[in-house]
Amino acid sequence: MAAIVTASLDVMGGDKGAGVVLPGAEIALSRFPDLRFRLFGDEAVVGPIMKLHPKLAAVSTFEHCEISVKMDDKPSQALRRGRWRSSMWRTIEAVKSGTADYAVSAGNTGALMAMAKFCLRGSAEIDRPAIAGLWPTLKGESILLDCGATIGAEADVLFEFAVMGAAMARALLDKERPTVGLLNIGVEEVKGLEQIRIAGQMLREAALPHLEYVGFVEGNDIGKGVADVVVTEGFAGNIALKAAEGTARQIAGYIREAVDQSLLARLGFMLASGAFGRLRRTLDTRRSNGGVFLGLNGIVIKSHGGADAEGFAAAIEIGRSVAKSRIVDKINEDLAQYRASRLLEEDARLAKTGAM
Amino acid sequence: MAAIVTASLDVMGGDKGAGVVLPGAEIALSRFPDLRFRLFGDEAVVGPIMKLHPKLAAVSTFEHCEISVKMDDKPSQALRRGRWRSSMWRTIEAVKSGTADYAVSAGNTGALMAMAKFCLRGSAEIDRPAIAGLWPTLKGESILLDCGATIGAEADVLFEFAVMGAAMARALLDKERPTVGLLNIGVEEVKGLEQIRIAGQMLREAALPHLEYVGFVEGNDIGKGVADVVVTEGFAGNIALKAAEGTARQIAGYIREAVDQSLLARLGFMLASGAFGRLRRTLDTRRSNGGVFLGLNGIVIKSHGGADAEGFAAAIEIGRSVAKSRIVDKINEDLAQYRASRLLEEDARLAKTGAM
Repeated sequence: MAAIVTASLDVMGGDKGAGVVLPGAEIALSRFPDLRFRLFGDEAVVGPIMKLHPKLAAVSTFEHCEISVKMDDKPSQALRRGRWRSSMWRTIEAVKSGTADYAVSAGNTGALMAMAKFCLRGSAEIDRPAIAGLWPTLKGESILLDCGATIGAEADVLFEFAVMGAAMARALLDKERPTVGLLNIGVEEVKGLEQIRIAGQMLREAALPHLEYVGFVEGNDIGKGVADVVVTEGFAGNIALKAAEGTARQIAGYIREAVDQSLLARLGFMLASGAFGRLRRTLDTRRSNGGVFLGLNGIVIKSHGGADAEGFAAAIEIGRSVAKSRIVDKINEDLAQYRASRLLEEDARLAKTGAM
Repeated sequence: MAAIVTASLDVMGGDKGAGVVLPGAEIALSRFPDLRFRLFGDEAVVGPIMKLHPKLAAVSTFEHCEISVKMDDKPSQALRRGRWRSSMWRTIEAVKSGTADYAVSAGNTGALMAMAKFCLRGSAEIDRPAIAGLWPTLKGESILLDCGATIGAEADVLFEFAVMGAAMARALLDKERPTVGLLNIGVEEVKGLEQIRIAGQMLREAALPHLEYVGFVEGNDIGKGVADVVVTEGFAGNIALKAAEGTARQIAGYIREAVDQSLLARLGFMLASGAFGRLRRTLDTRRSNGGVFLGLNGIVIKSHGGADAEGFAAAIEIGRSVAKSRIVDKINEDLAQYRASRLLEEDARLAKTGAM
């Protein structure tokens, strides 16, 4: 029998809350019967909707929470106002207490990250957390991190992101030794990019067993799939991911508009629907929905606030793959191993210097 | 009679050099007969191709240059090796000497920016230069800056970028008081974003006559056209522009692939070609080709190295519009006026404090 995987869900998060979270969980369950759920939310809201999903109810526990973090709450407010009674906090806490393997929320990103940091504190081996996102490419999918948790990362932080991203690629993309690139801009010898160059040097010299460093990657290379993992600091990563999503949506809008205007175009699209499969998959941002918080002592998945049930199901499924792969342990092992080898090298170097 | 506009062109720049630059110039000339050209390049290469373009030759002067900056030259190398004899340098120098209204090169961006800074030094009112690019949106086009000249800009630099971008929007988009937004990420209260908040405050308080500040803009908002001008530092700007371009190319590739696979899809596309006009214009990255260097004492346009003749013509035409609008003077006037008003306010404040 396959091992059970338990997800804790913040039923109040997102623009539509329970109306998306519960049907989304039921979709994920239909595809992955090994899922179990711990649900946190307001009983008055969740109860009636739960009755419509008996299959889900059969594999879930529900706990009432008095407070819901609002989509426009500032992280500091969310942390102040009766934090420990909110559905968001309790969803994360289930991971800390070990009663869930991972948490999913479509709530306010800032509040979720603040609570996740507070509750799951940084992993012993990791300086700063990152949010990893999926990017549809010509070759399949790549992972981009950081998508907004850590702004202006230094070289050692970028190095850690590379290790975390590679561990996620092993879990999600089924690659033995994923390729990793550092996001950079074409203009060389520009001030302010030293940390990226140093991170590249560190990755090359480290020659880690679980990642293959392939050098710098530019913004237009990500979609070509030149690296399984693309590493950058959180500001540029967030902007890149959203710029690409926005462009895909914009173009999808033009296609819809054109098809609606012309019967023949519609006919052509319908008859060629197989041929347009890759296009549709790329434009379907629901499939890649789910930012994975890495660098904490537990897995938290952020779903888009505006995701529909299919999108929320994708976030649950991404979390399931990540949780099943014991990713937190793997990251810590990789980093601990790397640091130990660095210390040995340093000792050897000092010994040699002393002997001369 | 309309005033003549003279462009100096680096005929050796770009992946295909003269084979793209000369036909591109002829295309631009056919659309804008007020254009005149000063051409710089290697006579042995340019001569034979020039014979194929008699209309262009009739409105151009040509000067032989011994040296061509290579696409993979580092900026420091380009500045060292016989700089003043290279076609790139002399193209820029024509702007400095006043014999051309603006310069266009498809050469190495880093070398071009380094030479442009060296030759046209920073404008008296501007701290740091920026590269401004065009972004096709649902509403038409927006301007994004900086696309890679200045990494990690502080608040006052972002403020200057806003003024420069607004001046360019007045020139290119024909807006009296363009809207300006600051690129930011959704997560609030994250370290490292103070400079963006301060720049926003400065723009709001300045209440400049030639720009309307509309607040923060996220990566997925740019394509919606929520602001005529989107301001950010050069790293994120470069990544955003290239990520969006890459996504548009990727999707265009899927569409071509699908249409090639199915006769009916092809038929539908052909018959509905009118309806697909907006889609095609958005996917046609040639139309928005041309990064405008702002903040220098003269206008330099960077064309994509891989642009074709139509793309290079677009870069020439963007430069023509910018040059005709006296943009350098306008930017300096706007900033001088703003700084004078700040000094008056400061005096008034000091006088008041003294009187109390």
